[in-house]
Amino acid sequence: MSEVKIFGLGGLGEIGKNMYCVEYEDEIIVIDCGVKFPENEMFGIDLVIPDVSYLIDNKHKIKGLFLTHGHEDHIGAIPFVQKQVKMPIYGGRLTLGLVKSKLEEHRMVAEVEMNFVNEDSVIAFNHMTVSFFRTNHSIPDSYGICIETPQGKVVHTGDFKLDMTPVGHSTEFAKMAKIGNGDVLVLLSDSTNSERPGFTMSERSVGEGILDVVTKARGRIILATFASNVHRLQQVVDAAKAQNRKIAVIGRSMEKVFLIGQELGYIQIPEGMLIDIKTIDNYSDNQILIICTGSQGEPMAALTRIASGSHRTVQIYPDDTVIISASPIPGNTVNVSRTIDKLYRAGANVIHGSVFDIHASGHGSSEELKLMLSFIRPRYFIPIHGEYRMLKTHAKLAMQVGIEPKNIFVMDNGECMRATRESVTMGKVPAGVVLIDGSGIGDVGNIVLRDRKHLAEDGLIVVVVSIDMKNFKVLTGPDLVSRGFVYVRGSETLIQEATVLVKQKLLEAMDKKVKDWSELKAQINEVLKPYIFEKTGRNPMILTILMEV
Amino acid sequence: MSEVKIFGLGGLGEIGKNMYCVEYEDEIIVIDCGVKFPENEMFGIDLVIPDVSYLIDNKHKIKGLFLTHGHEDHIGAIPFVQKQVKMPIYGGRLTLGLVKSKLEEHRMVAEVEMNFVNEDSVIAFNHMTVSFFRTNHSIPDSYGICIETPQGKVVHTGDFKLDMTPVGHSTEFAKMAKIGNGDVLVLLSDSTNSERPGFTMSERSVGEGILDVVTKARGRIILATFASNVHRLQQVVDAAKAQNRKIAVIGRSMEKVFLIGQELGYIQIPEGMLIDIKTIDNYSDNQILIICTGSQGEPMAALTRIASGSHRTVQIYPDDTVIISASPIPGNTVNVSRTIDKLYRAGANVIHGSVFDIHASGHGSSEELKLMLSFIRPRYFIPIHGEYRMLKTHAKLAMQVGIEPKNIFVMDNGECMRATRESVTMGKVPAGVVLIDGSGIGDVGNIVLRDRKHLAEDGLIVVVVSIDMKNFKVLTGPDLVSRGFVYVRGSETLIQEATVLVKQKLLEAMDKKVKDWSELKAQINEVLKPYIFEKTGRNPMILTILMEV
Repeated sequence: MSEVKIFGLGGLGEIGKNMYCVEYEDEIIVIDCGVKFPENEMFGIDLVIPDVSYLIDNKHKIKGLFLTHGHEDHIGAIPFVQKQVKMPIYGGRLTLGLVKSKLEEHRMVAEVEMNFVNEDSVIAFNHMTVSFFRTNHSIPDSYGICIETPQGKVVHTGDFKLDMTPVGHSTEFAKMAKIGNGDVLVLLSDSTNSERPGFTMSERSVGEGILDVVTKARGRIILATFASNVHRLQQVVDAAKAQNRKIAVIGRSMEKVFLIGQELGYIQIPEGMLIDIKTIDNYSDNQILIICTGSQGEPMAALTRIASGSHRTVQIYPDDTVIISASPIPGNTVNVSRTIDKLYRAGANVIHGSVFDIHASGHGSSEELKLMLSFIRPRYFIPIHGEYRMLKTHAKLAMQVGIEPKNIFVMDNGECMRATRESVTMGKVPAGVVLIDGSGIGDVGNIVLRDRKHLAEDGLIVVVVSIDMKNFKVLTGPDLVSRGFVYVRGSETLIQEATVLVKQKLLEAMDKKVKDWSELKAQINEVLKPYIFEKTGRNPMILTILMEV
Repeated sequence: MSEVKIFGLGGLGEIGKNMYCVEYEDEIIVIDCGVKFPENEMFGIDLVIPDVSYLIDNKHKIKGLFLTHGHEDHIGAIPFVQKQVKMPIYGGRLTLGLVKSKLEEHRMVAEVEMNFVNEDSVIAFNHMTVSFFRTNHSIPDSYGICIETPQGKVVHTGDFKLDMTPVGHSTEFAKMAKIGNGDVLVLLSDSTNSERPGFTMSERSVGEGILDVVTKARGRIILATFASNVHRLQQVVDAAKAQNRKIAVIGRSMEKVFLIGQELGYIQIPEGMLIDIKTIDNYSDNQILIICTGSQGEPMAALTRIASGSHRTVQIYPDDTVIISASPIPGNTVNVSRTIDKLYRAGANVIHGSVFDIHASGHGSSEELKLMLSFIRPRYFIPIHGEYRMLKTHAKLAMQVGIEPKNIFVMDNGECMRATRESVTMGKVPAGVVLIDGSGIGDVGNIVLRDRKHLAEDGLIVVVVSIDMKNFKVLTGPDLVSRGFVYVRGSETLIQEATVLVKQKLLEAMDKKVKDWSELKAQINEVLKPYIFEKTGRNPMILTILMEV
């Protein structure tokens, strides 16, 4: 019997761009296809996606792309990856609703095969059979995936929490126990909250926390949360209903979710309760609850604009209560705190942070992770979804519930487990990052990024000269033009003196009949760079363009 | 009797660049002169300092710059400000030690008058008299300042916590009570931790927490903290001593503090306990404790280098315990968590965060702030040191202890309180930010930053053409050169096609005898920009240089 190969192309040792593969002989099952947001130093990059060279090289083997849920870090790379390698997609109803709207933006809907699945679906291939179990997470239609292989089951949890009092469907505990009842080869389980002790707060408690704040508020309420957290939105609608407030929605993705959500029956709003944002002034302040985007302080989102007074319809009134029903993702703390500050300045009362029960994570804490391990009882364990220390912490939890250290594999993207019931060996597949900038996939790499960093830090000086190379004569120039370097006004002397220095150097070079252009450029650099550094303490990029006339 | 003017040039509505002024007739007392670290969008900026135009215009009135303590956000702008306006400096022993070393780097020690003060110092001017009271903070020699004016006392707390069991000197509670015993016109008090309930943990408890971790560790210990937290360093030394470990120090600022600290008697190390980092391999692992910089994940600091395996003497061994005795400042969370991740990958056990008592804030929480208000009992209250919401929260605390809302002033930089015992009116003084880049003070402003941002995001294309304007002939070019835009390899066609488009446009313009250079540039832009955007989804800066030959 052959071995099962299991590897991640993204999501191991990082938060984001989740993509995992299970391969048996001539069949590959792909799970998720997410994006990651660029790090600070990735100047100008919009998105980061997994390198899928391995899938391109083995596209004849791919049976399908199976989606655990509809968050960006699990579906965001689909348009870009489908352009490189076509795969039929399988996912829950809301998940595919979100994928479709994404493919529409890229005008690719017609090219991609999409198959709805639910907890009862079973998709059988030659060697492998895929089935699903419902979990709870901060978006509806979240599934764990079970792949039966000739070597036993491979179980992937997706993102999950074990919420005993969820809003919407319950986690299928019985089905998970049944899966765990025998022959689970490998469990891949979500490590996002492995560092948190205890249990994650139930989504139901958040509903109570929000109702509490809504009940006490006197003026308008403006609530920001993640647009995809449909259950949260429903709870906000319920709280508003209980307090006789109308709901108005702002922010593109929030409006979209309210449309899709109502259409698919995920959000229930009583007739007449949803009003147009332009009509809010027809109601008294205590009749209004505005739901908006911007809980992460995103520069262009609704709450951010409202906070800075630049939103076209909503301004802050002194009696407004703003609820931020979200935690800032680490890279966003500064932006979120800036938004809160502006809201305070505008006179609002801002409810945020962990003091009130207005937000709960969608990821299970350590006790839930142990429970999952106890349900599934795998032979081998791979912690997924998380930075290295989270994977490592998850590995420790697994040891606590009795999994032997030698059967726990903290892996990196591109590391490939080859597993049979008897043994495991490790190999490699190609893996890496591909940067998306504008419409380009992978045409920005290290050199471009290095140049952008240089330009960002010190700007540039362009030196242009036209030369008659036959007679070794400088015809025009050198002209020095700078951008992002110094105020031109006040720096005339600096630029003039630099020009004189470059000109002298050029004339010397002409006298010496220097013919080689890179030699000429080097000589200009040699005189210009130290002069600029001495005068300003900066190292702008120097770009010399020689023209032969 | 004249009114007392009180205003901030930095530190109100922000964390950092603290600078406050108290003015009576022809006398100005300046308190602190700090820097702020640039925000993310301030590409290439090293530091942000207050705009001191008001002080330059009124330099004849300035009696002195009084320093509350030696942190960068209170002393960091001194060299830059002294270049603009000379002021005699008054400060505690360690504070001036740090100022001196700063001035040495700028080769300015000889130009600046420095006067040591302590809790007994009284500096009398014509109208105003300055005295001091000891407080506790995360650096020794922290003082509150009391200025007696003809309108009553103006009290400035500096940064403080009310630590009942400090390491080093105690807060002078009795003196504070005496100051508050009558005629305090205004209190300016630290708001950094106004949002935290209760009391801040004592520095003494941190010592116990660190000793606990040190006692349990088996291999080497590497501890990172703020170099200026001299009391913390002493406690680390004490813990190492208790466990018979030698101390080695790495990181430039840490080495400097150990030198100054021992010299001034702030750090006591038994003979032979401090060893050279190069000799650590002569000892067994459980005899070593390394103290280093990098607790904020700063890219060039010792711990960051150690974590990435690029430090020249220290590598991580699997049994190492790394203690990060600090909280990440909001903008640094991502860098700190990256460092922790790398340390885990290298095999270290990392102790960080709030689970262990290994760090305490240097700022008092809300109960301490109320206590300060109760001690000083001011007529008017100005919360200082903090973002707007912290000042606002501090204002609420003041109301709780009985200060009337009309006597509380949440101010911005540049707002000027004119106070007498009877009344307050508000005015304005010039205030703002000055950006430091390299050796330039204020020569980088909005235009330069906007260009840097543009270059950072999409790079640039330089278009160079030489033209014979008499005969309307293009002589050479157009040449298109790009940086930070796309990989040159693979983009040849793009650049070639763009060149053809620009050339056509130029030839047309020559035919039409277009003479105006900005018109020519605009026409090139008109054809190049949409083409590039259509092909790449990007908007690089287009810099056209026309040369007349």
